[in-house]
Amino acid sequence: MTDSPSTPLTIGVFDSGFGGLTVLRALIARAPQARYAFIGDTARLPYGSKSRRTIARYAVQSARFLVEEQGADYLVIACNTASALALDDIKEAVPSVPVIGVIEPGAEAAHRASKTGDVLVIATDATVRSHAYATACQVRGLRALEKACPLLVPLVEEGWVMSSSLIQNLPEQDAPALPQLAVTAEVVRIYLDELLADAASRSHNPDTLVLGCTHYPLLKPVIERALPPGAQIIDSADSTAAQLVMYLGRDLALPGQTSPADPVLRFFATDSVEKFERLGSRFLGRPVNNVQLVDLGG
Amino acid sequence: MTDSPSTPLTIGVFDSGFGGLTVLRALIARAPQARYAFIGDTARLPYGSKSRRTIARYAVQSARFLVEEQGADYLVIACNTASALALDDIKEAVPSVPVIGVIEPGAEAAHRASKTGDVLVIATDATVRSHAYATACQVRGLRALEKACPLLVPLVEEGWVMSSSLIQNLPEQDAPALPQLAVTAEVVRIYLDELLADAASRSHNPDTLVLGCTHYPLLKPVIERALPPGAQIIDSADSTAAQLVMYLGRDLALPGQTSPADPVLRFFATDSVEKFERLGSRFLGRPVNNVQLVDLGG
Repeated sequence: MTDSPSTPLTIGVFDSGFGGLTVLRALIARAPQARYAFIGDTARLPYGSKSRRTIARYAVQSARFLVEEQGADYLVIACNTASALALDDIKEAVPSVPVIGVIEPGAEAAHRASKTGDVLVIATDATVRSHAYATACQVRGLRALEKACPLLVPLVEEGWVMSSSLIQNLPEQDAPALPQLAVTAEVVRIYLDELLADAASRSHNPDTLVLGCTHYPLLKPVIERALPPGAQIIDSADSTAAQLVMYLGRDLALPGQTSPADPVLRFFATDSVEKFERLGSRFLGRPVNNVQLVDLGG
Repeated sequence: MTDSPSTPLTIGVFDSGFGGLTVLRALIARAPQARYAFIGDTARLPYGSKSRRTIARYAVQSARFLVEEQGADYLVIACNTASALALDDIKEAVPSVPVIGVIEPGAEAAHRASKTGDVLVIATDATVRSHAYATACQVRGLRALEKACPLLVPLVEEGWVMSSSLIQNLPEQDAPALPQLAVTAEVVRIYLDELLADAASRSHNPDTLVLGCTHYPLLKPVIERALPPGAQIIDSADSTAAQLVMYLGRDLALPGQTSPADPVLRFFATDSVEKFERLGSRFLGRPVNNVQLVDLGG
């Protein structure tokens, strides 16, 4: 599917908004030599409250854009909701390229990590209602307990987060003050206390937590502190990147390809380019520039 | 516009979601003898991130539904974003009925309340970016300082609020625990401290705060505690209801009309009826039943 052995692969990454940039970030860390085209369907987010049919229609439009107009050789559906509800529609719409979602890699990583066989999943309301993670865990013999945490996405989008690994490349004025961080820590503690109490009441003995939303990796340090010691955290973004790189393996190692200091990145959004650049840098951990506005219609 | 002198008026109320039910609540308190038809365009919320053209198209569809299919004699645009960006389009689309938005009544109430002439406005991001409140205040000789508070709507929708006047009709399990309320109080304090510090740095001497979002009346007790003593709080919902009732005056006082214990209410939503009934009761302060699903197309 590549133009020639010396042309780097183009990996297309799709999300309903900015959160999928954490998946792109994990991909760049593991495969800096690839080219990337990312589209955020920001005009029509959030997908969470929409019907399956509408989500599938929107997701297929973005997938076609990445494959047909940006020449993507592989497609990563970084959006949990679209992965849960529209993966088959997307595969059908772009049969010429392999398509990978975030849910199966997340469940697979949980399966490898858990010793007790009991795992927790935190996600958005829509993803929890689809039970896509619970189903993917069940076929692997895991018992999953899911919880919707609706306040976490707004807290991340408001920038009330601090992650030393993400913050280092950002301008100082983007760093939030202490009271904001305390609020975020308290919200995380309330949600996880409820989830852990629910688990205890069901004789569920979890040792692993899946971050079932691409916004949540920005909260990882806070989430770690709210869990019992020794609990493992599964980042679907990272698991998905790992699986894709394993899948690509030989293609990525083609002779003539090197690891550039600055990866080749193209960004597209369906609404405010300014907001995408401003918020996007929080998720990607590096500046997001030259975002192009696209109109997908419908 | 009424069928006969003894037929009660039908007041149509439109919002992008549930928040507008606080306006309906204020209307019922002032005019319980009217009939009400409320539509929440829940499938397409939030309007805040959408373009003016799209907001106008959606709002006009809801306005036409209320007038042409539900026989509304008067129309209240309870959504701040739609009031700020689409009021003229709506008036043009349904020229046979009077249309009232929430912004002008809110600014008018602030004008009556403020002695210093300096007022604060808290609202969603989209409403603040439109500067509709600042403009409406300016033409009345007021100086307005606006602040977007993006976390307040998610906190209200998650139910992390306690208002003694609203909570009394709700089942006990809907009452949130203390840690959740403390989070909400802290978020409100952070936003208002920033706004008050900004005012002080500009020699702005505010004595009045406008609640520029229909979700915020549920936070009134918490907001009161975060303001300097003596500051007045303007609830756009209540101001709008007062203005409409003053406008209707004679029509509402038609002979043969009485104040029923149970007002005549019809509810419509464009997405999940179950969610509308569950969340809606928080805003209306009474149970919300028999919500009908409607498809507005487009």
